[in-house]
Amino acid sequence: MKRREFFKSTVAGAVAAGGLAAPAIAQSMPEIKWRLSSAFPKSLDILYSTGETLARHVAESTDGKFQIQSFAAGEIVGTMQALDAISTGTVEMTHTSSYYYNGKSPVFALMTSVPFGMNARQQNAWMSQGGGIDMCNAFLKKYNVCALPGGHTGTQMGGWFRKEINSIEDFRGLKFRVAGMAGQILATLGVVPQQIPPADIYPALERGSIDAVEFSGPYDDEKLGFVKVAPYYYFPGFWEGGPTTHFMFNLDKWNELPKHYQAALRDAAAFANADMTAKYDTRNPAALRRLVGAGAQPRAFKTEIMEAAFIAANAYYDDLASKDSDFKAMWTSYKAFRDEEYFWFQVAEYSYDSFMIRMLRNRGG
Amino acid sequence: MKRREFFKSTVAGAVAAGGLAAPAIAQSMPEIKWRLSSAFPKSLDILYSTGETLARHVAESTDGKFQIQSFAAGEIVGTMQALDAISTGTVEMTHTSSYYYNGKSPVFALMTSVPFGMNARQQNAWMSQGGGIDMCNAFLKKYNVCALPGGHTGTQMGGWFRKEINSIEDFRGLKFRVAGMAGQILATLGVVPQQIPPADIYPALERGSIDAVEFSGPYDDEKLGFVKVAPYYYFPGFWEGGPTTHFMFNLDKWNELPKHYQAALRDAAAFANADMTAKYDTRNPAALRRLVGAGAQPRAFKTEIMEAAFIAANAYYDDLASKDSDFKAMWTSYKAFRDEEYFWFQVAEYSYDSFMIRMLRNRGG
Repeated sequence: MKRREFFKSTVAGAVAAGGLAAPAIAQSMPEIKWRLSSAFPKSLDILYSTGETLARHVAESTDGKFQIQSFAAGEIVGTMQALDAISTGTVEMTHTSSYYYNGKSPVFALMTSVPFGMNARQQNAWMSQGGGIDMCNAFLKKYNVCALPGGHTGTQMGGWFRKEINSIEDFRGLKFRVAGMAGQILATLGVVPQQIPPADIYPALERGSIDAVEFSGPYDDEKLGFVKVAPYYYFPGFWEGGPTTHFMFNLDKWNELPKHYQAALRDAAAFANADMTAKYDTRNPAALRRLVGAGAQPRAFKTEIMEAAFIAANAYYDDLASKDSDFKAMWTSYKAFRDEEYFWFQVAEYSYDSFMIRMLRNRGG
Repeated sequence: MKRREFFKSTVAGAVAAGGLAAPAIAQSMPEIKWRLSSAFPKSLDILYSTGETLARHVAESTDGKFQIQSFAAGEIVGTMQALDAISTGTVEMTHTSSYYYNGKSPVFALMTSVPFGMNARQQNAWMSQGGGIDMCNAFLKKYNVCALPGGHTGTQMGGWFRKEINSIEDFRGLKFRVAGMAGQILATLGVVPQQIPPADIYPALERGSIDAVEFSGPYDDEKLGFVKVAPYYYFPGFWEGGPTTHFMFNLDKWNELPKHYQAALRDAAAFANADMTAKYDTRNPAALRRLVGAGAQPRAFKTEIMEAAFIAANAYYDDLASKDSDFKAMWTSYKAFRDEEYFWFQVAEYSYDSFMIRMLRNRGG
């Protein structure tokens, strides 16, 4: 694999293309104020606070000169409008899951997560050392946007079901709140995907107008109370093995920054990217225990179901690649990297985790 | 679990304890030059370059004003002398595996990795959100040092063996180059641990004066050529499930930095921490393929052997905790966090990886 130096070829490249900021500005500490429109509500506190973490770190490393004010989804623009707002420069940046913009291009889905993609650590490696963020930024130029990875949730849960799913037949006609590309792929297995905003999910599930909902992992899911009306808690969320959120910037605004402010932003994003994952990893275990205490019944998806979905996903990607050259280019890179990662991870990493899980479970851990 | 704000309670805490830098300095961009003495030779390029990455990022985000010059192990001081050199301020900082200083306290081993510890992602979570780096820095004060996580290798391999290891009996009398706490624990199973500097390992293995050697993972191991004389390549390295290297700083020098330089250093360290892991994850797969092509025979350690080592390790930790209150305090936190992490990771994360590994292997990936 061709190695790439993360920022030499990506954001610094974008800077070079846009022209360097004037030396007089680059060598001083100008006062700059930006706005960040988060794609997330404040109630999803780990997601929302990731934008605040970035802003605080940038302020700290620029001696308070570069201030970014965070707004929750809807305070300036809604989640679905954030990309357009960044693109035109109405707001300077967003923190988002780019797959919300899957309707514009499937590449936006691939930037976050697609069914049977990489896990969080592998996705980090692809982004920074496998050319991933370079490809994202080359693609995003047509939207006048550039991006940096902005945190992972880890493998998500597969969601809450009112009834057990024992075979692929149980997917037929199942009204399942699942968005984007995952919904399209599951539809080929008979699922009837539903797109419902978070606030409306619980009532729809309670009255039975939907049968199931996938949302995130234990810590986020707990807040929405699904356990009371749909106790079967399936795993894994095979459509989100390692979703990456992103910080996205208006490219002109980015290029206007002094180079050392760009560097501060890049490193603050690296901090926030790891910090979000660490928060989920720290808070999910206790949330899962609480959910089980409240009646959640964890269930593993049957292998038969996951295998059928895996085959359906590959057929979907092949079809998409034949129609969309942007997707084809990125998927080719992504898939090759994923396959190499799992070839290696199955050796030391996986055999170690396997052993630890078995030993700690046997000891009642 | 009590949540902690990473730097509020750790390095910023150290700053508060040492007194804030004078406002006149904090609000300007003074020129500062530091030296970094790496614990690693330049030949271990991923490890060595992690210090350079930190230095480059700090320079970039301080507009070139804060310069850190990197030196390889031995250029200023040797690997084993680096802690003392930092402690006294002879050099401002090091990038190292703290377990080299296990002889001073077993806490130094725990900061890096101990047998049957956490994997890389879990260790990141413990460090930043589980109070880990706080505890490290409280402990390091007695050495006049503070630290930040500085990169992971991922689960290492178990090493190169001249003969197959089929049972615990085959460990008896085995002259195995393995250092520190892992060596002490394996010694209780009959292994005769050997401490040999990297340059002397190959000849010792070739002439049979040692039987086996553990070093790192495929990318690093390949450079040392062990495959030619000890082809059985065991996994996993259960004594290094997720080793963390650290950046360590002289505490006075750290406290003298303007606060925004501290912030720049903290975020550059976050970048470097993730970057090192991404480099190993990206380069290990191809290195493993090359090693297998050169005759390496991958072998999984027998469950019987790992179970015996797990029991031996726990007995060792219990004994150590009864004698060393610093170790006891940190091990109690570490172990509780590890157990919760694996309780959660076994659900979504592990079931996802299991499926992916099986499917991709079946497809000849």
